[in-house]
Amino acid sequence: MSATGSGYSPGLKGVIAGETSLAMIDGAQGRLLYRGYPIGELVEHGTYAQVAELLWTGEWAAQSDGVQLACAPLPAEVVGTLRELPPQTNPMDALRTGLSAWGATTGFAWPPSAEQARQVTAVAPSVLAAFARLRDGLDPVEPDPSLTLPAGFLYQLSAARPNAVEARALEAYFVVCAEHGFNASTFTARVITSTHSDLVSAVVGAIGALKGPWHGGAPSEVVNQLHQMGSPAEAEAWIRAALASGERLMGFGHRVYRAYDPRAAALRKVAEGLASVAGWLEKAIAVEEIALRLLAEHKPDYPIKTNVEYYAAAVLQGVGLPPNLFPATFALARHAGWTGHTLEQATANVLIRPDVRYVGPAERHLADG
Amino acid sequence: MSATGSGYSPGLKGVIAGETSLAMIDGAQGRLLYRGYPIGELVEHGTYAQVAELLWTGEWAAQSDGVQLACAPLPAEVVGTLRELPPQTNPMDALRTGLSAWGATTGFAWPPSAEQARQVTAVAPSVLAAFARLRDGLDPVEPDPSLTLPAGFLYQLSAARPNAVEARALEAYFVVCAEHGFNASTFTARVITSTHSDLVSAVVGAIGALKGPWHGGAPSEVVNQLHQMGSPAEAEAWIRAALASGERLMGFGHRVYRAYDPRAAALRKVAEGLASVAGWLEKAIAVEEIALRLLAEHKPDYPIKTNVEYYAAAVLQGVGLPPNLFPATFALARHAGWTGHTLEQATANVLIRPDVRYVGPAERHLADG
Repeated sequence: MSATGSGYSPGLKGVIAGETSLAMIDGAQGRLLYRGYPIGELVEHGTYAQVAELLWTGEWAAQSDGVQLACAPLPAEVVGTLRELPPQTNPMDALRTGLSAWGATTGFAWPPSAEQARQVTAVAPSVLAAFARLRDGLDPVEPDPSLTLPAGFLYQLSAARPNAVEARALEAYFVVCAEHGFNASTFTARVITSTHSDLVSAVVGAIGALKGPWHGGAPSEVVNQLHQMGSPAEAEAWIRAALASGERLMGFGHRVYRAYDPRAAALRKVAEGLASVAGWLEKAIAVEEIALRLLAEHKPDYPIKTNVEYYAAAVLQGVGLPPNLFPATFALARHAGWTGHTLEQATANVLIRPDVRYVGPAERHLADG
Repeated sequence: MSATGSGYSPGLKGVIAGETSLAMIDGAQGRLLYRGYPIGELVEHGTYAQVAELLWTGEWAAQSDGVQLACAPLPAEVVGTLRELPPQTNPMDALRTGLSAWGATTGFAWPPSAEQARQVTAVAPSVLAAFARLRDGLDPVEPDPSLTLPAGFLYQLSAARPNAVEARALEAYFVVCAEHGFNASTFTARVITSTHSDLVSAVVGAIGALKGPWHGGAPSEVVNQLHQMGSPAEAEAWIRAALASGERLMGFGHRVYRAYDPRAAALRKVAEGLASVAGWLEKAIAVEEIALRLLAEHKPDYPIKTNVEYYAAAVLQGVGLPPNLFPATFALARHAGWTGHTLEQATANVLIRPDVRYVGPAERHLADG
């Protein structure tokens, strides 16, 4: 390992920190596979419950086998905790705190298990939905076990059952966002797990990492930016000015994908079925075309394509979510991946503890100076 | 960086993941320096407040300059959250949850600052002490701003001001445990910070990592094991049997230190002043001598020395802490280092996102099989 020991790669870029069987990401070709299955097929034919079980157990089970994953009821202690939070609390902080409290009450032991993964993934949407209602002065809604997890989340938010198109759209969003390799939040979960800490600590840490705009992004910014642009006719001038001043176009560019993000493609298809965002989507598609053209002109040697956030914004808006819940909804979907990585880390565990280069003062003494 | 990209080092062992000016750890010589100052001098002449400011700001300020760091009062929301937790909650889970709730109420913005670091370090002991009292059916105690942070923690636990020897002993423990390079919890805090997430999210994640026994260890196990050994005369046979069966001797061995852990040396000196553990300590010193001799016989080529946990157990017992609070007290002390690393990460930030090697199934399709 002298080769790795001698180099310093800021941000561990290009450093292989582990092995995984969960996601294969082919940035050059724009391919994303979960345990070998292309994301497009999973969105089209699968549910989040099936995808989560695939990530946890490695097995693809037909829906008729009774794969179920419904939102779980909240223990009174967790509702009590959420009631303490001020209404203006960042929803990511609320989710982090509610799940931390839930972990305190459940006291999961080592090693993490698929059953633990199911439980935390099932309770997380209930935590977020309860907070969202409490901040509005409403009482939480008991989960409906007959609904799939994404549909059940919408139900617990609004106390109304979503229609089939909305339910299907959010299901697709959850499938598409379930897992994506060693991003910063997943890596956080693995580092925490590597100390033999519990699964909930790993998820709580991951939520904290996803909260950062450099990772969880700012999906609501896509909405804001499209709004600022005005009409599609005005968008070209707006984008030119933004690129000239070095501003980032929200919803474009990804650390890994050089080709079109396959998740964006899948979500665009889903968004096209959502009548509630038809006008918004028409504009988004028109603006995307302009943006891709101008980005290619601006940096001909560095391909920047549409990323998952662009059409995620359409889907999340389309199912009626307020923009300030977008990042935390992303976190809910990513639970399958975080916990899947926790299980994978635990089965072949080694403490993740890198070295550091000391660049501070040489030895000195308190009596000096 | 092709050299680092080609190798895979499990656990990132030997991989340099960043640069730091905070701690210099010389495992071969048994030296630990905070910003250049040897830990032994800092323990002897400094307070935790001075050491924390040194880590946060880089400056060593004489105590007469009015360096203060007292335990902070808890907002009502945090006390309310702690009241929700069952009495049998793991204290690390309680600390994680209470601080997460505190972070939700404060809503710290990017970038992290020394003032934010001061605030979270000052509130953490109040969170843990309040939980410890609530689980016993007692009301939390308002902090006394005239006490140093470690003494104030003891006061909030017991509602009695510690004597000077106890206060000094816990002060030394806090200084010694304040910072230790890129361990798994500190690295977790840096990964979270690298996404531009907030300081409290970083600390909450770090607590989750420290909770793992492979990192935070099991300091109370030192107490248990010494108890199991019986008298020093019986210890030799006990240790021989333990080593023969591959059992780990608690309080010995460290990933980095091959020489005697300088923190153990400093804490032993402090423990010798604590009358309340005089008998226990006498036995611990006798057993240490036997253990070091047998460890050297057992693995002559791999030096295993006393680690910080061994005499930490004496100090923490000596100031009256129950063993189930030992790991969380370690977490309180480590706040200075965690937050110091958060500040350091933020000043020269780059997203920490390593690569992963995919070892799962090749592309396949849902229709297959």
